[in-house]
Amino acid sequence: MLKCPYIYCLPGGREMQIAIMGFGTIGSGVAELLLKNQKSIVAKSGHNTLDIKYILDIRDFSNHELGKYFTTDFNDILNDASVGIVVECMGGTTPAYEYVSSCLKAGKSVVSSNKELVAAKGYELLELAKENNVNFLFEASVGGGIPIIRPISQCLAANEIGEIAGILNGTTNFILTKMIEDGMAFEDALKLAQDNGYAERDPSADILGHDAARKICILASLCFGKHVYPDAVETEGITNITSEDVAYAKNWGGVIKLIGRAKLNDSGKISATVGPCLIQNHSQLASVDDVFNAILVRGDAIGDVVFYGKGAGKLPTASAVVADVIDCAKHTAKRKAFGWGPAEENYVIDPLLQSTSLYVRAETQDYVTAFNEVNKSFESPVILHREDEPKTEIAFITPVMREKEARAVIEKLPIKVNAVLRVLDY
Amino acid sequence: MLKCPYIYCLPGGREMQIAIMGFGTIGSGVAELLLKNQKSIVAKSGHNTLDIKYILDIRDFSNHELGKYFTTDFNDILNDASVGIVVECMGGTTPAYEYVSSCLKAGKSVVSSNKELVAAKGYELLELAKENNVNFLFEASVGGGIPIIRPISQCLAANEIGEIAGILNGTTNFILTKMIEDGMAFEDALKLAQDNGYAERDPSADILGHDAARKICILASLCFGKHVYPDAVETEGITNITSEDVAYAKNWGGVIKLIGRAKLNDSGKISATVGPCLIQNHSQLASVDDVFNAILVRGDAIGDVVFYGKGAGKLPTASAVVADVIDCAKHTAKRKAFGWGPAEENYVIDPLLQSTSLYVRAETQDYVTAFNEVNKSFESPVILHREDEPKTEIAFITPVMREKEARAVIEKLPIKVNAVLRVLDY
Repeated sequence: MLKCPYIYCLPGGREMQIAIMGFGTIGSGVAELLLKNQKSIVAKSGHNTLDIKYILDIRDFSNHELGKYFTTDFNDILNDASVGIVVECMGGTTPAYEYVSSCLKAGKSVVSSNKELVAAKGYELLELAKENNVNFLFEASVGGGIPIIRPISQCLAANEIGEIAGILNGTTNFILTKMIEDGMAFEDALKLAQDNGYAERDPSADILGHDAARKICILASLCFGKHVYPDAVETEGITNITSEDVAYAKNWGGVIKLIGRAKLNDSGKISATVGPCLIQNHSQLASVDDVFNAILVRGDAIGDVVFYGKGAGKLPTASAVVADVIDCAKHTAKRKAFGWGPAEENYVIDPLLQSTSLYVRAETQDYVTAFNEVNKSFESPVILHREDEPKTEIAFITPVMREKEARAVIEKLPIKVNAVLRVLDY
Repeated sequence: MLKCPYIYCLPGGREMQIAIMGFGTIGSGVAELLLKNQKSIVAKSGHNTLDIKYILDIRDFSNHELGKYFTTDFNDILNDASVGIVVECMGGTTPAYEYVSSCLKAGKSVVSSNKELVAAKGYELLELAKENNVNFLFEASVGGGIPIIRPISQCLAANEIGEIAGILNGTTNFILTKMIEDGMAFEDALKLAQDNGYAERDPSADILGHDAARKICILASLCFGKHVYPDAVETEGITNITSEDVAYAKNWGGVIKLIGRAKLNDSGKISATVGPCLIQNHSQLASVDDVFNAILVRGDAIGDVVFYGKGAGKLPTASAVVADVIDCAKHTAKRKAFGWGPAEENYVIDPLLQSTSLYVRAETQDYVTAFNEVNKSFESPVILHREDEPKTEIAFITPVMREKEARAVIEKLPIKVNAVLRVLDY
């Protein structure tokens, strides 16, 4: 049975080799952090060493101080039995999916920071990990360094989770913060975000909500147990938010935030959305500014619990990756029980079927009639105001009701609707 | 080797029995939650059953719906080999310490919600657990249901933690919230807290800071690796906070909160304090109101991360206890590597040796002279004001400097000092 008695006889002589795939911001942060806090990281891992053996990148890093570790050939990693843990920070699904699958099949645990991969292929990869008795962990894929995947799966394990909602994208939160605090227009705030390096030159994945949608897929899959794919998420970005909306929200006593959200209903189905929402100032999510992220989990026992921190950035994200590496190292003999089931048809329902309150901004040629109609059509609507509000504009908040019905009522009003946003109760 | 082949041959036929010691608020919540979410809890535990076998309480619960489980004899639990996990919710250290020690020695894992016990005997009990290859977990002892012990020990494992600070006591936070938001005097706010059941008839453990001190001991021990006892924590309550201080803080753009705090310095020593502090409104701790708790952890990679939620209450606290129970059940074959080292002499230093900014409120017969002296003695002090401020009162904030030196300067000023509070930079 003992293939290599030498290793087994060394008291505590367990060594662990790591490979990092992708040496961009996160991958280089992982290498930096592993070296910086090496002593305490190794101590926590339960191994005697935890060394980087390979770094995979197609670019030339031969002159880098870690140059000796670099390879451009994935097979170096795949075929080296001494590599027990592979860190995937490549992004995208090609070739990440193929590489991660191969590593898991080869009996290597994989840690990924790649939300696109986990949102698209999480279930398949978790199953592969299970079949091969290894770990597939991805704490860094949501909320950067904020601990969220592990707290949900372990600390809140006694709860039935009913809802999860969060500010999951730092770029859009920075833009909205500038619109709220400095009264900037969307375009100017976007430009500032780009100038600061918070937004990419092609910012569409952020500002159209796709990045947040991938993250809410991962959170919803984890909280509710069935894989949710991005195309099931109703996704709206922040490109249509105007300073008028920001001003109405402010006057109401709240702010507009881009919220990714998944909610369980009584029949065991969920809705999953990403979109700008109004939240009240006293909410723990309202004071999450700039590039920070925060995630709220609503459990039946715990009530609301909120996790706040840096949702992106080199070292915060690396912090989450390395925590997963340590966890993989600790769970070499017995893998962590962790994962969720396959997607299910008709499981993600139309959010219009859920109950909510809506914010509406509209034009009208006859304010008094519009005002009266709004008040007649809804039970206790809240009429909103803002400074320098033109006489042709009306804004209000509906009571909580089934969204489909609320929208049908709004459609019949003598107004031209310019904005409809959900109002949340966190 | 196989003592009972029947059990080993049953596929997945693993059963786990639990005992609960103490059937007060938390203990009854644990029983309620274990029964309410039984199906999903058992599924997560990796066992086929997870059943309550005993509830220990000296009171008569024979007519309770769970009456059949009750016993008044601790030996029933201790001597029953089928009990693998014991939940301790008795509070205090006697007989909790003896009972928990005996259970650990008997090879049973123990989950405790008892901050007094963990603060006083954490190291000893963690060692006992290690010696006997079982788990001793206590997520519920700090922050009620908020996940904090596990995130620090696992999710932030890649970080060197430099500082931890939190609103750790819901009673005092409720009182301060009423003083801040409704302008109530301390005594009136305390009475309201008592009327609402948030404060006990003898509220001293809360309002004098002892409860928060126990919690910061546990957090400091966990973050920095050496047991910190309550007598090493400089502890001040909120009984001296006046509406004048609240008003000055408000005008400055902040609030007063009771903060438990531990901070590492460059020489590897720590300071540990509990006391009312000024924090700015944009801090994530500033908007933590009423009985809520929040804990901020500052790591070298992650930056500041904040955990927010219900710090007390039946089901939130039970949620944390049951999460630990599940973790114990998952780690029967191999215990969780978790704990810290023994206390060390001269490890906890006088907080006066650390740097901070101070808030000062004082009386003076000659405002102009006092004002000039303050400005001469400190580099850019911030002079504060409040509505209806008497001419004999001066309040200011010092720059950041070694606290000992700042206090020496303050002592020489021509003023009669009425309040000195630390100003934090979160």
